[in-house]
Amino acid sequence: MSVLLACDVGADEAAQWRAALGAALPGERLVGTREGADDIDVAIVANPPPGALTGLPRLRLIQSLWAGVDRLLADPTVPAQVPIVRMVDPLMNAAMAETALWAVLALHRGFFRYARWQREARWAPHGQRRAQEVTVAVLGLGQMGRAVALRLAAQGYRVLGWSTRPAAAGGIETQAGDTALDALLARADVVLNLLPLTAATRGLFDAARFGRMKQGAGFVNLARGAHVVEADLLAALDGGLLHHAVLDVFQTEPLPADHRFWSHPRVTVLPHAAAQTDPRSAAGIVADNLRALREGRPLAHLVDRARGY
Amino acid sequence: MSVLLACDVGADEAAQWRAALGAALPGERLVGTREGADDIDVAIVANPPPGALTGLPRLRLIQSLWAGVDRLLADPTVPAQVPIVRMVDPLMNAAMAETALWAVLALHRGFFRYARWQREARWAPHGQRRAQEVTVAVLGLGQMGRAVALRLAAQGYRVLGWSTRPAAAGGIETQAGDTALDALLARADVVLNLLPLTAATRGLFDAARFGRMKQGAGFVNLARGAHVVEADLLAALDGGLLHHAVLDVFQTEPLPADHRFWSHPRVTVLPHAAAQTDPRSAAGIVADNLRALREGRPLAHLVDRARGY
Repeated sequence: MSVLLACDVGADEAAQWRAALGAALPGERLVGTREGADDIDVAIVANPPPGALTGLPRLRLIQSLWAGVDRLLADPTVPAQVPIVRMVDPLMNAAMAETALWAVLALHRGFFRYARWQREARWAPHGQRRAQEVTVAVLGLGQMGRAVALRLAAQGYRVLGWSTRPAAAGGIETQAGDTALDALLARADVVLNLLPLTAATRGLFDAARFGRMKQGAGFVNLARGAHVVEADLLAALDGGLLHHAVLDVFQTEPLPADHRFWSHPRVTVLPHAAAQTDPRSAAGIVADNLRALREGRPLAHLVDRARGY
Repeated sequence: MSVLLACDVGADEAAQWRAALGAALPGERLVGTREGADDIDVAIVANPPPGALTGLPRLRLIQSLWAGVDRLLADPTVPAQVPIVRMVDPLMNAAMAETALWAVLALHRGFFRYARWQREARWAPHGQRRAQEVTVAVLGLGQMGRAVALRLAAQGYRVLGWSTRPAAAGGIETQAGDTALDALLARADVVLNLLPLTAATRGLFDAARFGRMKQGAGFVNLARGAHVVEADLLAALDGGLLHHAVLDVFQTEPLPADHRFWSHPRVTVLPHAAAQTDPRSAAGIVADNLRALREGRPLAHLVDRARGY
């Protein structure tokens, strides 16, 4: 049998993946094309082109190199009966927690405001709140949401966790369901989105939702661009409802050069870089999954297609 | 007896201090002027104007509201025999650790670079190192330096502590003395200055020192502007020796409007706001010191004038 590597991620990154996976899977035959399709039983994918997984009669596992599988599930050419495993890497969770912590620190301590003022050569120190006085709502309590919530709580922030279905996260106060969400948004100085993208969460952040947030709150989106109605976010920033937004993900990526987010003084744009999969560690995780498959053991982090993640 | 409050810090902040100290010191007579100078035995000071502490025959304690006392020691009108106590407030240490962590996260993860690229609408994710792969040199292991070193180590960074005289800091690797400094600078991805300003550390960061740092290192100065030869820092940035500088303190404060730091794309300017004294907690610390004085108990955090801090 052989393993198809289907990654549309740029030449450098693809080469890193090939090298790392080759080293981690010494007993496997890795192929980069669909030649010999009858022999392929596993596909390792990152952003596979539509149709890349069709016509593989023996395919029995799709291993995503990414944590988010919404694009994979939206692709009708991905065979519906083949189990999908998504990437869960503690190092990726740590990278996400770093980005979240940096954004929360900057919002809490006014560092984005100082950066704006630097452009005007304006020297104006402002007062300083304690971390304990800053409430951060972490939306989404999966692997990444929990890592983020715990890291923020460890710095002294008051963290409120929320998810669509009840979930626990260490000693963090958590809530679930739509009714709880609006009450929680009204309490948060920073709202941090780490939800999976599903039918229930698409467009969650719209004018109504921004209107329920605390006046002057910060908004951080590290999940998916489609969670946010971008025109409504711009209106909330321009109208003074929100103080600042940190955005790693967008409706269209790369973010089009003429998009207002790029030049908006209260928007920080990151190029979908909050937490990248690191081939060095992820290849070992893929290898563990493949061994489990070959040896008939249960697979970790299987995607529930009905749930959407 | 009465307590002189001599703070040249702006009207809002002075009013906060008067209110907080008044509440914390209910048995003391707080005066804002030198009228009744013969009765004044304690002076609580923040940036006192030259001469503010002369002609107070009974003065026996100068309590600084700031952690750094270099300006106080440089003022020849401050009576040389009166003990000086400086402000040591765990909340200030925490604020300093937050600023340091934010700066290190931003340097580590390239967030300053992404901010530069945002101005060009440039979408270019770059690779991501692990915190364990980033070495941070923390120079100065006093109250603040130790708090910073421990906070950074807790996030996974490799922290090297350095001080002029041997000092311990939790489980951190520490070194002391001039010879060790240059070897340590060569290993650090980020050099973070929290040294006290003394004759030995004035101008420490000059062309020779920047030349010994790792190519592309980040430099963070949260201590005093006079630690840095500013022209040499600009040359190190322009010549590509250093990648980015985060500066909270300057030779002249406020930073003059025409200073190159304001507009330099690789310099982040903060308006001396890395760790502000918080009147709410600091007033209680001052009250404790005053009680110790009145009751003849030893004073904490006495300044050693020969040492300079």
